Amino acid sequence: MTSRRVAYLVVALAMATVAWTNGADNAAKKPVLRHVVLFQYKEGTAPAKVKEISKAFAALPSKIDAIVDFEWGTDVSVENKTKGFTHGFVVSFRDKAGRAAYLPHPAHQDFVKLVGPHLADVLVFDYSTTE
Amino acid sequence: MTSRRVAYLVVALAMATVAWTNGADNAAKKPVLRHVVLFQYKEGTAPAKVKEISKAFAALPSKIDAIVDFEWGTDVSVENKTKGFTHGFVVSFRDKAGRAAYLPHPAHQDFVKLVGPHLADVLVFDYSTTE
Repeated sequence: MTSRRVAYLVVALAMATVAWTNGADNAAKKPVLRHVVLFQYKEGTAPAKVKEISKAFAALPSKIDAIVDFEWGTDVSVENKTKGFTHGFVVSFRDKAGRAAYLPHPAHQDFVKLVGPHLADVLVFDYSTTE
Repeated sequence: MTSRRVAYLVVALAMATVAWTNGADNAAKKPVLRHVVLFQYKEGTAPAKVKEISKAFAALPSKIDAIVDFEWGTDVSVENKTKGFTHGFVVSFRDKAGRAAYLPHPAHQDFVKLVGPHLADVLVFDYSTTE
């Protein structure tokens, strides 16, 4: 192989890699359906139970393929407008079909059974990032 | 330059590019502070006013540097647990310092004045993606 040919190869490889990188970036920005879930626990719920529930929720992405992204956290807001919700989870799906696979999924249903008895209140708000 | 030397260059370039790509990926996954805001409008609020408000909220990232990501959408959930909230906005900051710059920012305060008179209810829940 001549140096010139190899030089072409270097340029081609670099261009291909940049193209792939941009593709990955676009993929990350594809519209998704965000499923925002807020929990308020019943007074007296054991901290260990709350921890177990957060852990069980965070384990769902490994059990349900339809989940393409997952985040959660406890409230750290400073405006006193939480309406009593203390734990927030954002489950992301590709689209409504993903959510339709998630809601009745046995792993999700098991989770609902685990958390249900401990909730004083729950809020669910879904939006599509296409807007 | 020998072919062998050029081959080393190809491998080095490929490794450097992959390292950069992974770096970009990690950067995208840096912990952020999510500021979830849900609105319920007063009955009778004109659709044009609601549209104007969503547009004004969506314009804040161009006016406030502390906002590193922004999403919004109307509720499309199917579980009837929205508590009456119809419009959701997720404003992301690098950290609490970003939020501290945002809340009193004149552009945010102008927005608060615009939306305030039309809200029946508002919920704010912040979480850090470090959890």
